[in-house]
Amino acid sequence: MRFVSETTANGVSERLFCLGDIPGVLWQSADATGARPLVLVGHGGGGGHKKAPMSWAHRLVACGFTVAAIDAPGCGDRLRGAADKMALADVRHRQAAGENVDPLIARLNAELARQAVTEWRAVLDELGELASGPSGYWGVSLGTTIGIPLVAAEPRISAAVLGFASGENLMEPAARITVPVEFLLQWDDDLVPRDAGLAVFDALASREKTLHVNPGQHADMPSFELDSAERFFTRHLATKHRPPSPLH
Amino acid sequence: MRFVSETTANGVSERLFCLGDIPGVLWQSADATGARPLVLVGHGGGGGHKKAPMSWAHRLVACGFTVAAIDAPGCGDRLRGAADKMALADVRHRQAAGENVDPLIARLNAELARQAVTEWRAVLDELGELASGPSGYWGVSLGTTIGIPLVAAEPRISAAVLGFASGENLMEPAARITVPVEFLLQWDDDLVPRDAGLAVFDALASREKTLHVNPGQHADMPSFELDSAERFFTRHLATKHRPPSPLH
Repeated sequence: MRFVSETTANGVSERLFCLGDIPGVLWQSADATGARPLVLVGHGGGGGHKKAPMSWAHRLVACGFTVAAIDAPGCGDRLRGAADKMALADVRHRQAAGENVDPLIARLNAELARQAVTEWRAVLDELGELASGPSGYWGVSLGTTIGIPLVAAEPRISAAVLGFASGENLMEPAARITVPVEFLLQWDDDLVPRDAGLAVFDALASREKTLHVNPGQHADMPSFELDSAERFFTRHLATKHRPPSPLH
Repeated sequence: MRFVSETTANGVSERLFCLGDIPGVLWQSADATGARPLVLVGHGGGGGHKKAPMSWAHRLVACGFTVAAIDAPGCGDRLRGAADKMALADVRHRQAAGENVDPLIARLNAELARQAVTEWRAVLDELGELASGPSGYWGVSLGTTIGIPLVAAEPRISAAVLGFASGENLMEPAARITVPVEFLLQWDDDLVPRDAGLAVFDALASREKTLHVNPGQHADMPSFELDSAERFFTRHLATKHRPPSPLH
């Protein structure tokens, strides 16, 4: 892992890194010492970028966490490869011809998630000491398409906030998740049907899982859900992995 | 309204009162001065008592609220009248005979709720200055069977935490509720079917409404839902009705 830049704003240090061709960012308290629990933040789809959730990351740092994010394959600063471009052109072509492209998109998403899971795990390995305590994962939409198989596979993640996603691909890994989950749905989601979203929540094997439903479409998450996520991570991570300095 | 006793424990003054034949209790900070937002707390069914949510009321007082509770008709310290006893005996008799008593119970609950709404509103009138700011309502199960028509009817209530209840009686008043609501469901509720619970949430006309679903049966509400309710009231009541002394 190679750190390529460091800036500091409002008491938060932001370090950009590369691991192979995976660009990432690490946000830490500029003045805190000692280990702090880590939260991995997965960006959304539709041109999502690792730094899109920056203000959310700053809040988590203010609450006593270290935050890491990476660009998913083909997202953010990562150029789409020739194969990705061809697959996307194929989807658009079939869509224009009136074909139902949902199964094709599901297959592409599953491939993307498989690659992203491998990449997140490699990043956790490289973060070493920073990822030595229990870590959390936050990500909705594409962040959950990737997050569900990641949380299922990764024993270092011990609490997750997920949501705004559904699909057959998610059902099997969801059933392997046993850590506490806060799962979000938008009740009038234009991309995730209610029943499909509820099915993912039902599939989670976690003893502690809680569903938060709010009115509105895919992009309408109310800001108080970030307040809730912050307390969720504080409850599950901060008390288990107490840093030498007080969290607040 | 006649205050009949006053005790103080852990910085919380508890005053029992009677308004006609309605027994109630008022919990206030023993040392705070000035007006504080009021939260009405409705107890559950099955022999519920106004003081059953006492530790919850103490927490709300510690967060800067004044809390009031009353015994619902036929509950707590209130003796069941002859008519109530006859109605209950009738239910048991029909149930023993294999009859579906759901419609009968629904009608009795609707009558109980009608009476309880009138009583709560009379108590609010009598609380005078204490109820002069925006108030909140918290109550699940029977506390929601009563709470939904109460919140629909009472303009002094500007935020409510409700849940664990369903039924045709609740649909019409739910559709008249426009204040922020946090609505709770237990996903394996032995008394409230999922679809019927979701229908009540759907019926609420509130622009801000949020549904919290947790696994488990009717009595299994996780304690973090009280943390959430506390913050919900702080968000909606404390900022609008700022007390002269800081809340925390």
